[in-house]
Amino acid sequence: MEVYLDNSATTKPNKKVVDIMMKALTDYYGNPSSLHHKGVEVEKLIKNARRQLGRALGAKEQEIIFTSGGTESNNMAIIGAVESKKRKGDKIITTKIEHPSVLNVYKNLELKGYEVTYLDVDQFGKINVEQLKAHLSEETILISMMHVNNETGTIQPVEQIGKLIKERSMQAAFHVDAIQSFGKILFTPAKIGADLLSISGHKIHGPKGVGGLYIKKDFKIKPLIHGGNQEVGIRSGTENVPGILGLGEAANVLYEDMDNKLEKMWDLKNKFIELVKNEIEDIKINGFEKEGSAPHIANISFLGIRGEVLLHSLEQDGIYVSTGSACSSKKHSKSYVLKAMGLSDKEIDGAIRFSFSYHNQLEEIDYVVDKLKKHIKYIRNIMKRC
Amino acid sequence: MEVYLDNSATTKPNKKVVDIMMKALTDYYGNPSSLHHKGVEVEKLIKNARRQLGRALGAKEQEIIFTSGGTESNNMAIIGAVESKKRKGDKIITTKIEHPSVLNVYKNLELKGYEVTYLDVDQFGKINVEQLKAHLSEETILISMMHVNNETGTIQPVEQIGKLIKERSMQAAFHVDAIQSFGKILFTPAKIGADLLSISGHKIHGPKGVGGLYIKKDFKIKPLIHGGNQEVGIRSGTENVPGILGLGEAANVLYEDMDNKLEKMWDLKNKFIELVKNEIEDIKINGFEKEGSAPHIANISFLGIRGEVLLHSLEQDGIYVSTGSACSSKKHSKSYVLKAMGLSDKEIDGAIRFSFSYHNQLEEIDYVVDKLKKHIKYIRNIMKRC
Repeated sequence: MEVYLDNSATTKPNKKVVDIMMKALTDYYGNPSSLHHKGVEVEKLIKNARRQLGRALGAKEQEIIFTSGGTESNNMAIIGAVESKKRKGDKIITTKIEHPSVLNVYKNLELKGYEVTYLDVDQFGKINVEQLKAHLSEETILISMMHVNNETGTIQPVEQIGKLIKERSMQAAFHVDAIQSFGKILFTPAKIGADLLSISGHKIHGPKGVGGLYIKKDFKIKPLIHGGNQEVGIRSGTENVPGILGLGEAANVLYEDMDNKLEKMWDLKNKFIELVKNEIEDIKINGFEKEGSAPHIANISFLGIRGEVLLHSLEQDGIYVSTGSACSSKKHSKSYVLKAMGLSDKEIDGAIRFSFSYHNQLEEIDYVVDKLKKHIKYIRNIMKRC
Repeated sequence: MEVYLDNSATTKPNKKVVDIMMKALTDYYGNPSSLHHKGVEVEKLIKNARRQLGRALGAKEQEIIFTSGGTESNNMAIIGAVESKKRKGDKIITTKIEHPSVLNVYKNLELKGYEVTYLDVDQFGKINVEQLKAHLSEETILISMMHVNNETGTIQPVEQIGKLIKERSMQAAFHVDAIQSFGKILFTPAKIGADLLSISGHKIHGPKGVGGLYIKKDFKIKPLIHGGNQEVGIRSGTENVPGILGLGEAANVLYEDMDNKLEKMWDLKNKFIELVKNEIEDIKINGFEKEGSAPHIANISFLGIRGEVLLHSLEQDGIYVSTGSACSSKKHSKSYVLKAMGLSDKEIDGAIRFSFSYHNQLEEIDYVVDKLKKHIKYIRNIMKRC
């Protein structure tokens, strides 16, 4: 049996996504900028993909820009907004638990002279809105925050924050990293007051190498990449047609049946946490279990066990999970997200992220918990003898 | 009959390219940064693609970085080199006939205070090496130049220029935009003295949305996009696995049988120019016909005819060509490349770019010239009556 529970790292593209990409590679190979039919037909397909993504996101199609992925979307949003607003102030705010594609851009801006505030989080990974309030000033030009944390699934109160920002500042832009929330919880950019909002294709059963950036109507950013002025001049470069059509289709599949998909993920997560709590000792659920968290992530510390050892043990039984985010897993450094939440080294070392998709089955959960029990018992036994 | 002669705008992906991308989308969907098998297997495939591209390009695999396309490669090379060398000088040099993904980056750097020299070209579109020599100084930190021009096929003397730069300057970096030369003429980055060299997937029967940047061993550039430190920290973002494997395979197909491919393109271009010269009056070949030009581009002005009208007429017969580069075609502005070569407005207005691939057939050339004759006669007749 193979059970893929690493859906926060990446997801398997849906059949419909693969099919449209196939067609794009074999039939719709024209350059959208070409004046002839082979260009024009592709241009129309891109327009359709933009409409599909806009609809699933609850935005106008004119508010959607295609990028090469979530990382570029985050870079483009942050650098683009700062470049566009730098005459109005030099203060920017983010949190300690952002993805590296936000955090490292902020660190780079800090080196360039911007004053950066990195907000703390509580034991559940939630920021303190009062701390944000205290740091928001007239010189603040940008606030970036992830909607759902990629390691713990904790949801930030973005709606409250969006309101606060608009009340307190005429000029501060609100950038939301929705890469882990799009398709996992219900929202619209307008509802959370986002000026900029990043999404990624491969986290929603779409392709790798493509992402989207929502830019609120009339909100202006400077381009990060210059050239032939594709994507209304905001993102130059020949359009990644297969990727864009694949992302459009992935968004369309999401949109078709969102409620059932969310319910399915909640069923999986609830069953998993319930079984783990009942059947395995010495564990700690990191982040919220139900309310306040997304349905696709369960982060659990198995005390006294090294996450990496457990990961490779589960792999022997065809179960794929991760110790933290995929991006930082290779560095073998301790999770800065769990650290910011105040977890002990022991708790961090034993943490495993299980991330679900609506493609997973409830029976898979029984299998996974069964194998988990087996491996944990075995590892703990060995450790006792050492 | 359908004859696609717009291969400089984009090419149809090879069957082998489509097949490996298919497999990447359905089987190899893991995140290369994941610690488990699904990540590790994909990491190996990316390594193989890097080796394939390196081999076809005549570079070490460690010198290859994957990007989202030629435009990003050019942006990354230029901004990355300038950011890394900005303490050593503020002079940068390019030409008047670069692609917008170079030219617009230079214009942006000019706005930021860099002193930019835009080199002239002669009637064939070739730069004057003496002019470059006169502008090269100790404060010059970067020279960017396209190897083969995308509108005319004219080759720049990059080998001579590479030598000149290394003789005259300890610090000036040489960035070659090889997007139109890779797979069309034989070279290696080392032979032309390039420190940085950009290529694109979709110009070599690979996929859109992926490109490569050659960075000479030990040459340092600053990243344009920050995040999870993929691609040895130079280009963050989850790898575009289908795109990268597709590009690797496209490079592999090129490498297999390069000589025959080049010969095939020369046969097509020679036959085409010969027939057009013999059978159509009042034409002008823009750029070189044989030596000094690449085998895949023929740019011809049909005097007294508007290129766009001819383009759409040919389209009725299933023939796809372009009036200039795809990137600037939508702006309906006159070609700045042909303008820099000193062509008259009439010559520019009547210019059509025919661009060949080794997938085209010699019989197609007969068909195209036949239809060209028909449409030109018709259009010229109408214009006489107006």
